Amino acid sequence: MPNPTAAMLVIGDEILSGRTRDANMYHLAGELARHGIDLAEVRIVSDVEAQIVGALNDLRAAYDHVFTSGGIGPTHDDITADAVAKAFGVGIGIRDDARAILAAHYQRTGLELNEARLRMARIPDTATLIDNPVSSAPGFCIDNVYVMAGVPSVFQAMVASVLPGLTGGAPLLSQTLRVQRGEGEIATPLRALAEAHPKLSIGSYPFVRDGVYGANIVVRGADGAEVQAAMLALCKLFPEAVE
Amino acid sequence: MPNPTAAMLVIGDEILSGRTRDANMYHLAGELARHGIDLAEVRIVSDVEAQIVGALNDLRAAYDHVFTSGGIGPTHDDITADAVAKAFGVGIGIRDDARAILAAHYQRTGLELNEARLRMARIPDTATLIDNPVSSAPGFCIDNVYVMAGVPSVFQAMVASVLPGLTGGAPLLSQTLRVQRGEGEIATPLRALAEAHPKLSIGSYPFVRDGVYGANIVVRGADGAEVQAAMLALCKLFPEAVE
Repeated sequence: MPNPTAAMLVIGDEILSGRTRDANMYHLAGELARHGIDLAEVRIVSDVEAQIVGALNDLRAAYDHVFTSGGIGPTHDDITADAVAKAFGVGIGIRDDARAILAAHYQRTGLELNEARLRMARIPDTATLIDNPVSSAPGFCIDNVYVMAGVPSVFQAMVASVLPGLTGGAPLLSQTLRVQRGEGEIATPLRALAEAHPKLSIGSYPFVRDGVYGANIVVRGADGAEVQAAMLALCKLFPEAVE
Repeated sequence: MPNPTAAMLVIGDEILSGRTRDANMYHLAGELARHGIDLAEVRIVSDVEAQIVGALNDLRAAYDHVFTSGGIGPTHDDITADAVAKAFGVGIGIRDDARAILAAHYQRTGLELNEARLRMARIPDTATLIDNPVSSAPGFCIDNVYVMAGVPSVFQAMVASVLPGLTGGAPLLSQTLRVQRGEGEIATPLRALAEAHPKLSIGSYPFVRDGVYGANIVVRGADGAEVQAAMLALCKLFPEAVE
């Protein structure tokens, strides 16, 4: 049986404006690979409702799971919860369970649960909450969509809450051979190897370092024996790469 | 006049599998911001023709410019050029100008221009070449789509070849104020400020560091005087953040 598929939707202007370098995508991609869920597509859109709604509806129809990050805080640019409700055509309002979590948190910390903070209790109808052990304000899950925070420590904690509950497939195993030859030289035997192992994904990632051309050849697959067999064949093809 | 818009399409399994962390998106986002072109969307898809064709046709219809990275090397997993030709409904074959560039390069380096390397001279009909000062194999431009390599040094060189030829708008100016208060406390005055400056984008990017909540408030816009005015107002709102 093929592994479940997933997409990620990153919401917010931070990455698009060049201000910050992605961290959440890199984290999620690694966690999904370990869990046996194939991350098949990522989209990054800005804080514009129509963009979020359009991308979310495309992705949730195309993949088994969709993970979003960003836009669920208390400020004016946090519009993800409303956009998700719109994408699903459901209502949204302050929910008692979410309000209770926030009320307990702010009582503990001695801060006021003001109107802005109360926005974080706005949850689309029919959604269930995702636990946030870092800063309390919950994420939520609606159908096959997991809506999570953009702050990396919170995002990671929410991924850790969600993943154990999802049925994974076989973890994606991956082995790499670093070859100090240009791709043009290794392309023909590599293609033959890829054709001999149609169930594996054999990728070639070229680099240029100090004027020297090389490639990392990555063999990925769910069947450990087959990954091993392909790696052995690779090492025979490029014996100089094996220390 | 509003700035031109752009999208980026990243092709390849490297990022989706969690193997590598993005570098090209971060580079392009910064360059476009400086050049006055608004990066509005990014998609990352795997080496699957239907995915590349679908994403490219969506993006080139929606934005002024589309920049792609990855999948134009000599190996079996390099299918971008063929996918681009398919998306545009044009033919593709080995082109004399591209072949001449490769022939000169491999003559210089003493390597054979073999069948695999010759694949890098496959260019869709009607496309023009993009110079590659690093490793010769050209990128190409077809209509509003710029097809570039995935190796960061080559990608960056190609971006540097392409950008000066594109009409930019006003560079996006950006100033940041770091506030050591939770977003819930600053959300209400921040919303009022955003409403008073509809031409600016005012974003709040929360963080948690050593248990302390804070936010980077980023004011972005093309009009320097207005960015400055909003920053002054911000500093009055949160005087403790100003050293």
